[in-house]
Parts: sequence; C-alpha cells; structure tokens
Amino acid sequence: MAKKRENAPSNMTVTAKQTPPDLSPIENLLAMAKDDMANVDSIIIERMQSSVGMIPDLAEHLVGAGGKRLRPLLTIAAAHLCKYAGEHHYKLAAAVEFIHSATLLHDDVVDLSAKRRGKKAANLIWGNAPSILVGDFLFARSFNLMVETNSIKALGILSTASSVIAEGEVQQLAGLRDVEMSTETYMQVIGAKTAALFAAAAEVSAVISKSDAPKQSALRTYGQELGLAFQLVDDVLDYGGYEITLGKSIGDDFREGKMTLPVILAYKNAVRGANKTAMAFWQRVIVEHKQTEVDLEIATNYLMQVNALETTLDAARQHIQNAKSALDVFENDDEIKPWKTALIRLADFVVSRVS
Amino acid sequence: MAKKRENAPSNMTVTAKQTPPDLSPIENLLAMAKDDMANVDSIIIERMQSSVGMIPDLAEHLVGAGGKRLRPLLTIAAAHLCKYAGEHHYKLAAAVEFIHSATLLHDDVVDLSAKRRGKKAANLIWGNAPSILVGDFLFARSFNLMVETNSIKALGILSTASSVIAEGEVQQLAGLRDVEMSTETYMQVIGAKTAALFAAAAEVSAVISKSDAPKQSALRTYGQELGLAFQLVDDVLDYGGYEITLGKSIGDDFREGKMTLPVILAYKNAVRGANKTAMAFWQRVIVEHKQTEVDLEIATNYLMQVNALETTLDAARQHIQNAKSALDVFENDDEIKPWKTALIRLADFVVSRVS
Repeated sequence: MAKKRENAPSNMTVTAKQTPPDLSPIENLLAMAKDDMANVDSIIIERMQSSVGMIPDLAEHLVGAGGKRLRPLLTIAAAHLCKYAGEHHYKLAAAVEFIHSATLLHDDVVDLSAKRRGKKAANLIWGNAPSILVGDFLFARSFNLMVETNSIKALGILSTASSVIAEGEVQQLAGLRDVEMSTETYMQVIGAKTAALFAAAAEVSAVISKSDAPKQSALRTYGQELGLAFQLVDDVLDYGGYEITLGKSIGDDFREGKMTLPVILAYKNAVRGANKTAMAFWQRVIVEHKQTEVDLEIATNYLMQVNALETTLDAARQHIQNAKSALDVFENDDEIKPWKTALIRLADFVVSRVS
Repeated sequence: MAKKRENAPSNMTVTAKQTPPDLSPIENLLAMAKDDMANVDSIIIERMQSSVGMIPDLAEHLVGAGGKRLRPLLTIAAAHLCKYAGEHHYKLAAAVEFIHSATLLHDDVVDLSAKRRGKKAANLIWGNAPSILVGDFLFARSFNLMVETNSIKALGILSTASSVIAEGEVQQLAGLRDVEMSTETYMQVIGAKTAALFAAAAEVSAVISKSDAPKQSALRTYGQELGLAFQLVDDVLDYGGYEITLGKSIGDDFREGKMTLPVILAYKNAVRGANKTAMAFWQRVIVEHKQTEVDLEIATNYLMQVNALETTLDAARQHIQNAKSALDVFENDDEIKPWKTALIRLADFVVSRVS
C-alpha cells in the first residue's frame, strides 16, 4: 500500500471528480477538490504576504511547505455535501488553515520541537520570538478572512474553536508529566486541542450554506469524531512501529513527558497488576522526566506488552465509526454521493493507514 | 502634581460625571466612566474564566492587576462622544483589553521581560509556554466577545488592528539592534504595534453607534495620534530622568537593544558630527549588544547631550495636537462636551506627565 502511494503522481494532473484507483483517500479527496483547493491555496498565499519580509518568509516555510491541508479540505468537502453555491468556503478554508498554522507555530515553541512537517521547525531557524509573532499574525489574518465572509455565525464557531484549542493546549501543559492523568481528562484535552478545529472546519460550511440544524450538527460530529481518531492515531504513531509517519519526529511526545492514551493505559495496567518495575519506569521517564536514549524503545515494548497501542487504535476505530454514521443524514443523490463516499473513505483511512 | 495624585483616593468612590479637582485626567475619565468600566470589568473577569485553572490564574495576574485600562476607556469615552445608546461598547471595550493583554503576554516572552505592570512578568512565574497559550486564549476570547456584538464592521476593524499589531512587532524585532533604523521605519513600527489598537479602540464605538464617516475617522485619528504620542513618551521614559514611570522597568528597551526615537536621533547626531566616540558607543551597546551596568547611564547622558529626549517629546506633543484637533468635528452640547474635554485633557496629560 505505502509503495503504491509513493508511486502516485506527486504533482497531480487529474481533473476534479476523477478518482484514479491508485490514490489514497486523502489524495482522492484532494483530486476531487482540486479546483477548490487551488482557490484556497491562492488565498492562503495572498494573505500571508506582508511588507514585513520576515512574515512571508516564515509563513512560507510552514504554510507553503504544504502539510496535508486536511482541515481546509474538510471545509471544502462539507460545502459540497451541503450543495453550497457561493465562494465564501474558500476564505473559511484558508482561515481554518491559518488558525491551524498559528497553533503549530506556537506549539513548536511551547514543545521545543525540532521538526515540523518533515522540515526543521521554524522556531529553530528564526527563533521563538518570530514564531510567536507570526503565529499571532496568521491568527489575526484568519479573522480578517472570516470577516470578509460576512458570516457572524461562522465567526462565532471559529472563534469559539480557537479559545477551546488554547484551553486544550493549556490543559495538556498542566497535565504534562502527570502519569496518573485520567482517560477522561486526556479525551477532553484532545477533544479541545485537535478535534475542535476539525469540527468547526466542517460545521462552518453547513452554516454558510444555510443547511438545516441536523446537517450542521452532523458535520460538526463528523469533524469532532474524525479529529479525536486522528489524534489517537497520531499518539500511537509517536511510538513508531508503524510504517507511515506524519513528517513529525517519532518519540517527540514521549521525550516531552506528554501523557497520551497509550501511556495512560500502560500505567493503569502496571498499577492494576502491581508491576513495580513498569510503574517505576513510567514514574522515572514521565514524572521525574529522566530519560536515556534507550527509553523510547523500552517504553514502546511496555506499550506493546499490554496492548496499549492496539487498544488506542480500537478507540480510534470507534470514533471513526461515529464519524461515518453522522453522515447518514446526507442524501445519496448524484451530487452528494461522491463527496459522502470520499469522506467515509477518508475516515477509514485515518485508522487504516497505521495497520 | 505627582504628590497630589498619590493622595487621590485609590479606591474611587466618586459618582460618575463628578470631576474632583485632585484627579489626574486619566483618573478623571475613569471616574466619569465609573459605571461603564464596572460593566467592562465584570465582562473581563467573567470571560477570562476557564475550567482549566491555570488560565484564570495567569490571566488574573495580568488582567486583574489592573493596569491603566486606557484602551477600553477610550472605547467607552468614544461611545459617549457618539451618544451611543446600546450596550455593545462594554463587550468591545473588554475585547480591546483582551487583545492588549494577549500582546503583553506574548511581548514579555519575546522580550524576555522581567516586569510587567510593576509585578513579576507572567512568563517568569509560569514559564513561556503558559504565557503564549493564555495569550492565545485571551485573543480568541476577544473575538468571541466581538461576535456577540453582531457587528461585522467592528470585527473587521479589530481583526485588522490585530494583524497590524503583529506586523509591527515583527518589524520591531527585525529592526532590533539596527542602529541605523530610519525615523520613518520607527514611526511605522509604533504606528502598528501601539497606535493601531488605540485607533481601533476609539473607532469601533463610532461604528456601533452608526456615527457618520467624519466622526468615525475623527475617533480613529484621535486614537492613532494619541497612541503614537503615548509610545514616544514611553520610549523617553525608558531612559529614566523623569518622575513618573509606568510600572515597567527602566532601561528595558535599552538592554534589549531596541531602537527607539531617542536612540535614532542620538546616533544620527553622532554620525552627522562625526563623533566617533558616540558612534562607537551606540555600535557597541546596540549592534554588538555588549553592555555593562553603567551603560544605561552613559546612554542617557548621550541622549541628554543632543537633546534627543526633548526632541522626542516635541514629536509627541505634535501628535497630541493632532489628536486634539481631530475631536473638533464633535459638537459641544451638554452631553458631549464633558467627554470631549476629558479626552482633550487626557491627550495633554500623555505628554505633560513627564515634564
């Protein structure tokens, strides 16, 4: 599978709505939304410009590097699901990507990250200060874009998502090295720091297309559940052992002492079984935050022993199921069906990419 | 004068619109707007709450510590000038204060500040990460508040101001230690990083009260010019020698190698007079950023020698003149006149407080 994807054309030349069999579900969606995403990209490039040269330089490093554009793609796909006929979804999609980019820039300073999207993290090239300020700039610009859509409701959804994201990040920070973090707290954290933006990205398209409440709620649920699954899988990938990574360094979360579901499960298991060696290990590497080179491998072994990665993936699979079911409210007519199918395949792919 | 102000009641009990002679112009405005500001304060306190405890703790440290509340006060005073009859100005004033607080939190990380509002800076107590994230939270919450006013125009003005502020901060950063910075670049920087929010804070009240274009423009100009003067005076105060400080550490800008108008003027003067000792001094402390304990005093002496602080204050006085003239478009009826007079006195005070 991975091999096939590598052979897929990187500079896609397919026209919209064709679905060559070699494409992964995300590439397929990108191909279907090719013209839309070209509009989104040109807004992104135009709006990250500034007479202050350091801003486009740094923004280009991150935003221009591509990334998956998963969140704006959600906005676009959701607009098709709602048969939206206007053009505001381009600006909202760009705004969503700007919010995401701003949080990435700030996260990398907060986490002291070394890599982002397979490249050296911006804070290590330009320093913390420009990363913070350019993040602020992109965040502000995202609101400029929303204002231009004239939709107070969309602004409300995305500004609320933004404050929820920040809350999630702070909660995660407060729980750093708290090896006894509960599953509930963890799910709250990822619901806020990751899923809230996925949910808002999809929901705003229902709002601007004046879809009914069940459809708005369905898209919100799809985004939220997809986001939860996405983060759970991301947390599993931090421990390697799976083929496909996300351009992020393996072991980043572990080295920071970040609590993720696999670690929560493994520690709980150690406590339940009174496994003092395992408890001492997690205490040392997480709470005392004393780690050596080999500890990531040892941690991964502990996680494997108690099936923590697989259990986390099971949880992700459940959220994917919820995401897919939410789309049931959408009709299966010729216009909607291809997009609905593509979003269902995307959801499956979020989990299947690691198995 | 300063003595008298110290004797003024710190917990004001005067009722609105009374103007006891002992109050400074800013205290006078606060007294006139007492009921309004109580509304603003309760919104501020309510909206900085979060179930994530670290957020209100940190926000309270900064926002609750008071500060001058100068920017929300502008919004309130401008609303009175426009005879605004609604309640949205409270939320906009709180939003303005949140934007300001967010930039302070981020600035302190960027500048590695030790003090803020006379207290230890938040980044030194909680660390950089929470300061960045709580800044993001307050910024997002400011947009939540704006959304509730239902005014797309106000949102446009404040989101544009926010991106301009970030641009100004980045431009300032790019010009750090550039001893040859031009006066034009410097004025651009302070126009963006400081004056843009003053301008927006005043302008939004004209917008929500549906005042005509000349009034909207007048309030924008008043805010912009007041902001420029405010920053120029702030830059002068960094070199001490004046009685009243702003709760910030004297010499902060100097120690960072930040270029401000006094330094620009002094360096230009040294170049013009081929004063090699002075040029070498500024090169060392700013460009090479090699400073010893005594250098702040030496710098202040150099600035005094060439009248750079007084020239900077002259520039501030000119902007104050512009600010005051802008208010001419407002009538002098019984309702408007007290506020107009108070804003004129406030403008004068921005410069007179240092002389």
